[in-house]
Amino acid sequence: MTTLDRAACEARDRTDPLADFRKDFLLPPETIYLDGNSLGPRPVGAAERAQKVIADEWGTDLIGSWNSAGWWDLPATLGEKVAGIIGGGSGTTVVTDTTSINLFKAASAALRMQAVDAPDRRVILTQRENFPSDIYMLEGLAEQLGDGYEVRLVDDAEVTAGFPEAMTDEVALVVLTHVNYRTGRLFDMATTTSAIHAGGARVMWDLCHSAGALEIDLAGSGADMAVGCTYKFLNGGPGSPAYTWVAEELVNRFAQPLSGWWSHAKPFEMSPDYAPADGIRRFLTGTQPIVSMSVAELGLDVAGRVDMAEVRRKSLALSDLFIELVESRLSDHPVEIVTPREHADRGSQVSITHPEGFAIMSALIARGIIGDYREPHILRFGLTPLYLGFADVWDTVEALRDILDNRLWDDPKFKTRGAVT
Amino acid sequence: MTTLDRAACEARDRTDPLADFRKDFLLPPETIYLDGNSLGPRPVGAAERAQKVIADEWGTDLIGSWNSAGWWDLPATLGEKVAGIIGGGSGTTVVTDTTSINLFKAASAALRMQAVDAPDRRVILTQRENFPSDIYMLEGLAEQLGDGYEVRLVDDAEVTAGFPEAMTDEVALVVLTHVNYRTGRLFDMATTTSAIHAGGARVMWDLCHSAGALEIDLAGSGADMAVGCTYKFLNGGPGSPAYTWVAEELVNRFAQPLSGWWSHAKPFEMSPDYAPADGIRRFLTGTQPIVSMSVAELGLDVAGRVDMAEVRRKSLALSDLFIELVESRLSDHPVEIVTPREHADRGSQVSITHPEGFAIMSALIARGIIGDYREPHILRFGLTPLYLGFADVWDTVEALRDILDNRLWDDPKFKTRGAVT
Repeated sequence: MTTLDRAACEARDRTDPLADFRKDFLLPPETIYLDGNSLGPRPVGAAERAQKVIADEWGTDLIGSWNSAGWWDLPATLGEKVAGIIGGGSGTTVVTDTTSINLFKAASAALRMQAVDAPDRRVILTQRENFPSDIYMLEGLAEQLGDGYEVRLVDDAEVTAGFPEAMTDEVALVVLTHVNYRTGRLFDMATTTSAIHAGGARVMWDLCHSAGALEIDLAGSGADMAVGCTYKFLNGGPGSPAYTWVAEELVNRFAQPLSGWWSHAKPFEMSPDYAPADGIRRFLTGTQPIVSMSVAELGLDVAGRVDMAEVRRKSLALSDLFIELVESRLSDHPVEIVTPREHADRGSQVSITHPEGFAIMSALIARGIIGDYREPHILRFGLTPLYLGFADVWDTVEALRDILDNRLWDDPKFKTRGAVT
Repeated sequence: MTTLDRAACEARDRTDPLADFRKDFLLPPETIYLDGNSLGPRPVGAAERAQKVIADEWGTDLIGSWNSAGWWDLPATLGEKVAGIIGGGSGTTVVTDTTSINLFKAASAALRMQAVDAPDRRVILTQRENFPSDIYMLEGLAEQLGDGYEVRLVDDAEVTAGFPEAMTDEVALVVLTHVNYRTGRLFDMATTTSAIHAGGARVMWDLCHSAGALEIDLAGSGADMAVGCTYKFLNGGPGSPAYTWVAEELVNRFAQPLSGWWSHAKPFEMSPDYAPADGIRRFLTGTQPIVSMSVAELGLDVAGRVDMAEVRRKSLALSDLFIELVESRLSDHPVEIVTPREHADRGSQVSITHPEGFAIMSALIARGIIGDYREPHILRFGLTPLYLGFADVWDTVEALRDILDNRLWDDPKFKTRGAVT
């Protein structure tokens, strides 16, 4: 067995086939950024792209840029790029609005399909540990629909077991996060989708915590719909627009209540009568934030250039190393690893718990190692292969060891909570 | 009577109290921009603001900027600025999402109020000539609600007459554009709101074509709700986020189906149970496009510095001049003015028709005078007092005269339609 020390980590960095992608991002100096699962860093060229959109497109061509700069087509143009990253296939994906809103649209559309195909099915299942906004949006939809529509929450174990209890003939739709945002648990898309279809329900995946971090084959899995954001592992910028994917055979069955003019078959005829566009434009609603959307293209282009299998290999190697170091170097402390040990069950983050998690993370951030904290007691570390190396993981765990061994977290300044953590 | 010629227009420009605001905008050279009612031009500082957000906030402070740069609070921060422009009052307005989506949220909330206050009222009235997206969204909502909810369209004349026919005891909500986007007709907010309330219905105003162009006193008018965009007369940038206003006494009755985590009382507790925030945060849904939203602040700040009464005076003077020149200089041609002559009925644009309207507008744009075209046969000219002068209006009508007198529009290159006009 080779010695596990910083030199060994540096050696792995020297032979890392993804090492050059570090140059595609502008990170502040003296920083180890382990929060790319919350907000990816800025790609090279992002500021220049914004400058171009504002000075040349908006500033010079003004209203003409809706055509000449391709603004009107950006949701579809960027959608094609997302489709390539998530295995969607051409003509299946748009970038628009927010994940929450796209989820509402897609869930509405799925329930309308089921109202035709299986009208007695009115239950939506989702994980109790799904990102809360997904649950809230589904509940908002069920409440709006009335007529017996309801949301039921299931535990992660129920999902991985193939819904032995929950999958009744009342279930219309299952909405699942692909990776649990707190624990980093990854759900198998193909087998889970098959189990849901065998139960007679439709499935929608939320890819916020997986797209850009691992290989996804939406079309191959047989999934019905998916949504996700572009600002985590896809590095699109703060609050950059989200996306909606719909299986090719369902695109023209997509009928949604947020039927704004961007979804109209002939939007510039300005008819008072609504008719949805053929194809993916029917997932849209209103006028999109062009500066944010244009900047998001930079991150998608980086993701489009990488071999996602290589990303996944390195992601698992980084998280294996992180787990090994936590176990070997922090064993004197009440630290627990909540991320699954099996590769097949693990996304691209490692989460650990400690009773003083919040203060520990604050102390870590104070020395330029940026992860984040989620209730209860969870320290999250996003492991992003494009700009993190093995020595970064070593340094992170060593910093944790220093903070724990010397109780450096036990300082009032690390215990004050801001509005957003 | 003074002679009406270019020199007289130049003289008026020299004494224009708003002339200095021209310096707040960066317009391309040799351009007369009459499309600010579709997309306002870029304010000075917009590119620098984007640079700051991308390089300093996103680039350097990364995830920390949600707190340190005030990203999380931007919807409310910008909302306060919009409230000042539309007479909303503090704590009543957020900037978020798109006009169409905000309209859906607010209409849903209004109908939920009526379901308690007047449950038999299930009809939504709106203008047949409202911007089509508003109609489509209301129809999408009514279809989703089922149970007898329906949208009925009324003519503008019915609105100005106070709804003698349409206001039955079935009407729950009236959604009205404040200014007709095609004709430029302005509806009186106070008297119309009173008529609607007298009929037992709630009212929502769409301010897309009025906010920033004239004085608005939402709170004083007694209106219930309003929505609007920031990219027309508020110069926020292409597709910059929209806003929602709710009367102060209704803020905490606002209950909407798009109940994402940004509307939650305690979003960072990450509870699976939804509870709306007290106050305006409950109008929100998901994570907002921060670059576009930050840039929008520049335009709001310009609007916040002007005396809107002065803006209105000049707007009417510009449109009076435009109408007078069209009547006197284009009288040999089949041109009709569709914008009302009465000041009280006129927004901040003049629309004229000509059977060859599309080709004429194309010819005009080719010489750097940018208005736009809307079906059927309508040439729209937005008259924006902050960066247009009286000589610009003179030059525009003279260019029109040249194009018409010499049939310069009769060229195939002016007759080809793009995807977006």
